[in-house]
Amino acid sequence: MELQVRLIQFLFLLTILQHSSSARILRIDKPDWHDVAASARWLVSQNIWGVLSTLSIEHQGAPFGNVVSFSDGLPGEGKGIPYFYLTTLDPTTRNALKDSRASFTMSESPIGTCKMDPMDPTCSKLTLTGKLLPLDEGSEEEKVAKKALFTKHPEMMDWPKEHDFRVFKLEIVNIFLINWYGGAKSTTVDEYLRYKS
Amino acid sequence: MELQVRLIQFLFLLTILQHSSSARILRIDKPDWHDVAASARWLVSQNIWGVLSTLSIEHQGAPFGNVVSFSDGLPGEGKGIPYFYLTTLDPTTRNALKDSRASFTMSESPIGTCKMDPMDPTCSKLTLTGKLLPLDEGSEEEKVAKKALFTKHPEMMDWPKEHDFRVFKLEIVNIFLINWYGGAKSTTVDEYLRYKS
Repeated sequence: MELQVRLIQFLFLLTILQHSSSARILRIDKPDWHDVAASARWLVSQNIWGVLSTLSIEHQGAPFGNVVSFSDGLPGEGKGIPYFYLTTLDPTTRNALKDSRASFTMSESPIGTCKMDPMDPTCSKLTLTGKLLPLDEGSEEEKVAKKALFTKHPEMMDWPKEHDFRVFKLEIVNIFLINWYGGAKSTTVDEYLRYKS
Repeated sequence: MELQVRLIQFLFLLTILQHSSSARILRIDKPDWHDVAASARWLVSQNIWGVLSTLSIEHQGAPFGNVVSFSDGLPGEGKGIPYFYLTTLDPTTRNALKDSRASFTMSESPIGTCKMDPMDPTCSKLTLTGKLLPLDEGSEEEKVAKKALFTKHPEMMDWPKEHDFRVFKLEIVNIFLINWYGGAKSTTVDEYLRYKS
């Protein structure tokens, strides 16, 4: 009997540990692959980090990818626009302030629903291309974005004040999604932003 | 007693499921953060995918990040050079064949050892900047790279022949690593490549 209790306790602990990193996300089932806008929005709402690529000042315009955390809204209320909390101590921020062209890339792999290799077309991947722009401090959008970021990434609230973090957004101009066989799927920015789950 | 057996069976199944996606990797403990070359090589040996950024032809030179699988060698025998299996059906490959400047970005997050937010400096991240180059077909390096790729990604062997996949490598010119507080850590390409675990 004691063993049973211990096993149950262990299982419980294991479950907590498994879900601790995703507790800030409202889990939504993967949409049908035919629904391109839904699939793209799902990847953005279910991921908490991705790779933000800018044009490197240090490396003469080479593309520079950097791991960053992001949020597109409160859990379950994302609007599809990725917001970031960046400091000019980071080359990505300095690059973007010089040339705002950027892309933001996410994989389905961290969500845990891929059954195949991360590069298999059934393991979705999304690249949003656009402009990485700082939000006006004190603006309405900055307040909303900050709340979205701090809710999914509470640690951000404790990041050093002297590092001068600011809120940026990716203004999306193109959506590149692969979520099934047959090459990139087509959707417009308008369809993507208008999508409601 | 029956409950005990069922719980043990369940635990066993859970363990298998948790490790199924990482069975192709020889797990190595995270190195001390002071050892910059070791930390960078560890991220490359323990990850199976990352984001490969190139300069987009379609989007007038904007940086384009794309999720790709990779391998730097047989499990436990990686040499630090990331190899990829790419097709010109993919924009990344077409971009690289026009302008080879590229970067490859990995996070510690998929390895499962991060205790903090993916953007916290203690959750390591690595960006290798360099040139993305196709290997000569039939060359010794191509044979080694293919074996490295197919061992970590057996699915690649079944990818459609008519898609004309070819092996590429990233010729590294710069290493950007954050694995602790205090900004990017410094290491040379030579130190990185010479490192032996």
